[in-house]
Amino acid sequence: MQAELRRVKAEGGWGAIFTEYVAIAPEDDVLPFVLGTIWDDDDVANLALMCDAVHEHEALAGIELGYGGAHSPNRQSRLVPRAPTQHAAEAQHGWLTYTTAAASSDEVRAMQKLHVDAAIRAREAGFDIMGVYGGHGQGPMQFLSPYFNKRTDEYGGSFENRSRFWLELLEGVKEAVGDECAIACRLAVDDLRPVNGVTIEETLRLIELCDELVDLWDLTIGDQEWGEDLGTSRFYGEDHQGEWQRVVREHTSKPLVGVGRYTSPDTMVSIIRSGQLDIIGAARPSIADPFLPRKINEGRLDDIRECIGCNACVARWDSFAPIVCTQNATMGEEYRRGWHPERFSQASNAQNDVLVVGAGPAGMECARVLGERGMRRIHLLDLEDEIGGSVRWISQLPGLGEWRRVINYRQLQLEKLKNVEVILRQELDVDAVLDYGAELVVIATGSSFALDGDNYVTREAIPGIDATQPHCLTPEQIMRGGKSVPGDHVVVFDADGYVAGIGLSERLRREGKAVTYVTPFSSVGAYTMYTGEYPIVARRFHELGIEVRTETMVTSVAPGTVTTEYLYEESALRHFPDPDGNVRESHAQPVSIDADAIVVVGTRWSDDRLFHALNARKDEWDDVGIADVFRVGDCVAPRQIADVVFDGHRLAREIDEPNPHVARPYLRERRLVERLTSTA
Amino acid sequence: MQAELRRVKAEGGWGAIFTEYVAIAPEDDVLPFVLGTIWDDDDVANLALMCDAVHEHEALAGIELGYGGAHSPNRQSRLVPRAPTQHAAEAQHGWLTYTTAAASSDEVRAMQKLHVDAAIRAREAGFDIMGVYGGHGQGPMQFLSPYFNKRTDEYGGSFENRSRFWLELLEGVKEAVGDECAIACRLAVDDLRPVNGVTIEETLRLIELCDELVDLWDLTIGDQEWGEDLGTSRFYGEDHQGEWQRVVREHTSKPLVGVGRYTSPDTMVSIIRSGQLDIIGAARPSIADPFLPRKINEGRLDDIRECIGCNACVARWDSFAPIVCTQNATMGEEYRRGWHPERFSQASNAQNDVLVVGAGPAGMECARVLGERGMRRIHLLDLEDEIGGSVRWISQLPGLGEWRRVINYRQLQLEKLKNVEVILRQELDVDAVLDYGAELVVIATGSSFALDGDNYVTREAIPGIDATQPHCLTPEQIMRGGKSVPGDHVVVFDADGYVAGIGLSERLRREGKAVTYVTPFSSVGAYTMYTGEYPIVARRFHELGIEVRTETMVTSVAPGTVTTEYLYEESALRHFPDPDGNVRESHAQPVSIDADAIVVVGTRWSDDRLFHALNARKDEWDDVGIADVFRVGDCVAPRQIADVVFDGHRLAREIDEPNPHVARPYLRERRLVERLTSTA
Repeated sequence: MQAELRRVKAEGGWGAIFTEYVAIAPEDDVLPFVLGTIWDDDDVANLALMCDAVHEHEALAGIELGYGGAHSPNRQSRLVPRAPTQHAAEAQHGWLTYTTAAASSDEVRAMQKLHVDAAIRAREAGFDIMGVYGGHGQGPMQFLSPYFNKRTDEYGGSFENRSRFWLELLEGVKEAVGDECAIACRLAVDDLRPVNGVTIEETLRLIELCDELVDLWDLTIGDQEWGEDLGTSRFYGEDHQGEWQRVVREHTSKPLVGVGRYTSPDTMVSIIRSGQLDIIGAARPSIADPFLPRKINEGRLDDIRECIGCNACVARWDSFAPIVCTQNATMGEEYRRGWHPERFSQASNAQNDVLVVGAGPAGMECARVLGERGMRRIHLLDLEDEIGGSVRWISQLPGLGEWRRVINYRQLQLEKLKNVEVILRQELDVDAVLDYGAELVVIATGSSFALDGDNYVTREAIPGIDATQPHCLTPEQIMRGGKSVPGDHVVVFDADGYVAGIGLSERLRREGKAVTYVTPFSSVGAYTMYTGEYPIVARRFHELGIEVRTETMVTSVAPGTVTTEYLYEESALRHFPDPDGNVRESHAQPVSIDADAIVVVGTRWSDDRLFHALNARKDEWDDVGIADVFRVGDCVAPRQIADVVFDGHRLAREIDEPNPHVARPYLRERRLVERLTSTA
Repeated sequence: MQAELRRVKAEGGWGAIFTEYVAIAPEDDVLPFVLGTIWDDDDVANLALMCDAVHEHEALAGIELGYGGAHSPNRQSRLVPRAPTQHAAEAQHGWLTYTTAAASSDEVRAMQKLHVDAAIRAREAGFDIMGVYGGHGQGPMQFLSPYFNKRTDEYGGSFENRSRFWLELLEGVKEAVGDECAIACRLAVDDLRPVNGVTIEETLRLIELCDELVDLWDLTIGDQEWGEDLGTSRFYGEDHQGEWQRVVREHTSKPLVGVGRYTSPDTMVSIIRSGQLDIIGAARPSIADPFLPRKINEGRLDDIRECIGCNACVARWDSFAPIVCTQNATMGEEYRRGWHPERFSQASNAQNDVLVVGAGPAGMECARVLGERGMRRIHLLDLEDEIGGSVRWISQLPGLGEWRRVINYRQLQLEKLKNVEVILRQELDVDAVLDYGAELVVIATGSSFALDGDNYVTREAIPGIDATQPHCLTPEQIMRGGKSVPGDHVVVFDADGYVAGIGLSERLRREGKAVTYVTPFSSVGAYTMYTGEYPIVARRFHELGIEVRTETMVTSVAPGTVTTEYLYEESALRHFPDPDGNVRESHAQPVSIDADAIVVVGTRWSDDRLFHALNARKDEWDDVGIADVFRVGDCVAPRQIADVVFDGHRLAREIDEPNPHVARPYLRERRLVERLTSTA
């Protein structure tokens, strides 16, 4: 799967394609994160597939050889992680209470040898560039860092001692594979730790110290908490690591590569011309558009599908799920569904006309891909005066301006497609759809927030919440409808956990209101725990003085008062119901908040009336020439933008399958065993 | 791997061995949970291996056919989960913001057919018993439940309508495979929901309604939040579901099976005799001792390795890692390391004597397995007057009495082993070990909590914390040393997140003190999020009136005052350091707590002085006849009990390997690809 993903990138024109972090030995596993491994020869065979795929397109194949040490709980191997110093390790993902062992001097040398042996295996697999991974507080950085390294031997204490591990390691790798392979070294210019971190001065000294041993410096910022390196567009613009990158140049004679969510060719050119970097690195931009370099080469700048910096990709990694991309529905689907980001087959039912109702992210993507597949005519209708659907207002939340690229890219593409017509300010009822004359109909009418406080906890309305009243508001009423938030103190009730609740809290606070953020989740903007944004969101809420109440439900609302309760009010233990039916004793201590208004970010409901109305008149389809009616996006089930874009894409890719309502099976990667005995 | 695990259970005498929940179709995946699947014929081939293995020992093979519906985010397939009603689904594990789609009537029938088709595939794989899974709020229970089901058609509303899905489903499965296979049905007698749940009366009506269609009722309690069903010993004793089970009998003519962490043969007999159940079900007891039935049969009751009810197994499942067991180090290692829980090979270096220093969990287990492997003489030494190490005091924390079984089982086994001698009240210095006369030495001297507030966040001491003073105390000082906690108000600072912090908070609160629980984690007893205990812990803390401050660090302590700070005090965004070095602006608002004492649950340090002292005198080993010195358990790195028991076991299993310091590689299950092209 990875091999095919990377083959596509190589085809897209990238000069070198790297693996993710690849663990060099069984004593480094971070399950449930899915980690590349180069533990043994079988891994070499699997990785060789990627090298071959990348070489097919004349790109170079690089590997990031990593050793987690203090960051590897080793729940798969059950081996004790070795690190410079024994310590309880950082706590997350259910890894609590694991502790590293301090490596003895012999073990330090063994750890270096593991890197060297892995480099030899990597060369065998066919890699051209050996990356030694010291970014994100991994392996060698732990020896350099006073935070991790409290040793008193020759590998701890002074800078000379703390840098020794890294120096010897690079010497070993260079000696082993330096003749045939380039050696890259990734490291953080600044680990951003307020205390006990590696200072920029020491990083620069290390670069000088090791400069002769490497062929390429690969620069990042930040530590294991990687939300700064992977800055989202909510908080950081393109090239946000530039200042750190620029201080490196005078300390090295070797080329520099770095990242910064580069999608603009102008920025790339100026960065190279100014000498800030020699090579443009990209992870997220290459996920959003694997063909970015080729499009620049061919002068097709309009066709670049720019990364919006939402970190949907990161969030799936951080929640142990396969990669997705908001902009690129084919990401991760190259092998298992056989989707290519730039190639589309002519649909076998292309002689049909398609009506797509609703130009939100799912509808736009569906129309675009149907256009690419050569359907005769596609009409994309929307009742508003612009396409984009929910992305129009979401991208107006604080910091989310780049999210508009979801619209911009599709708008340009739709304009180029001769068989697609966008029709605005047009609302169709069921009769109008039946009369429209299209053989295929796709309903993509989106979703709306509940007006009555319905939420995922109780699956019921909340007494007193009614967003037809002035003091109760939904996000859409504020952002699309311009409904004004009365008074000085507003409660934002966030039972959604992603962009709307935190965005509106920030916006209203900046408008001068006192804001109390109430959520049944355990933390502010719960999903930002996965996008890498959580610490930044928490710091911003603190900085802005937004009051936070987590694990708390709103139980009722009256004008001027919001009543809340802690989620765990009942008696600890469950008993069999007694005859009086007094099952669960409550220790409820309701807390009332004096508030002039409440913003209710609760359940989103599909706007599926048109779809159901059409289905109710299925017997008329034949007469009016409708072959089938589909629905995509929030109209099926309200989801993240990445998921509804996928949904629209999927339908268009499979519109000529026998049953396009049901997704085709995807290829699974699993080991198959042979039956050993027969029970027959 | 699963096949071998289950083969061992079959060998251990269980009459029927079930799979875990097995998803019947690709539209049900709960990645990153590792779920069994019976989606297609390749899955059938893999599952057949388990059936064959179980049949080898003349046990029956059962499968739990499940459909998650509202509980399946489908992050692998990217399909929209179908459920009775559209709704934002419960939020956990990074699954936020996924929403189910309401199934149309056609889709409801399709969902039933998926079950039937899966049952046919399961029969093909060789399963004898088809379990239809309605426990834990899965599949059919969602149709029965007014919480999940808000339909207005023939599948929603009245009891007749809400039970229709289940009834038709069982009819379909019975018709398809009922001639050849038994049909079991799992369901919760009480879903324990305070509002909108399925009442016990309705469950009993359902049982009556479907009684003719099933051959076995499989009873549980609780919903998706399954901590009640899987009650830990901290909160619930053996047979804690008895009251619920007993009401079922008069509503059915079919046999009943149920669970309740049964490990006592007396309890089992009385439950069967009283008619409460017909069959004893077991998950955790069979994990702790796969040979439990055979040991009862053979009258070897002393040899039963009783489950301690800690849910270490559940915690790994809930944090997406392979199963472990505190009592049984071989659990999950049957295939990949070839370990059998009851069989041990004679060590090839059995002519050696072994000295094990330290009789905590790692030392006890190591000595036990070395005894089983026939080493000539094993001396297990401890300086205390009883074996058990840290388990002695941990098992005295509120509710953890059953944890003493870790000691009890090993004590009995060690007494039976003629080659093992336990020597108490004996402290050895390095000279004494060198002079002892054993060829092999295992150091298992455990760990101790830091006295100075060292913690995983700062990796430094906290100013003012000094547990040699009366007002600062470590858990061990209180529980082992009897140090008394001064005053009326105590702060418990929990940077450990598991048993000690919450246990001492409860204990001190019950002694009448005011308790403020401060933790850098996001929730109380953070690891209980994974053991299924969190909601119970949170409710108990609330009930007891313990004040909680999460995401909070203790920054300094003085007699009478504990000063704390919110974890996210700094400015939201990171900037390149300005020339004044003013890198990170702080918005710190320190909070002082008037407290008479602080209990500091921080870093645990290995007590490894003896080990290092021995290594420092390695040149003398030869002369005194020492072949090697090992260490196991907390002395290597402080960990959970399950991990240190494993560590001691692992060393003993591999004591005769060429290098017992390093664990042998384990078998990995992965797909290997063939190289498609050559780069040569």
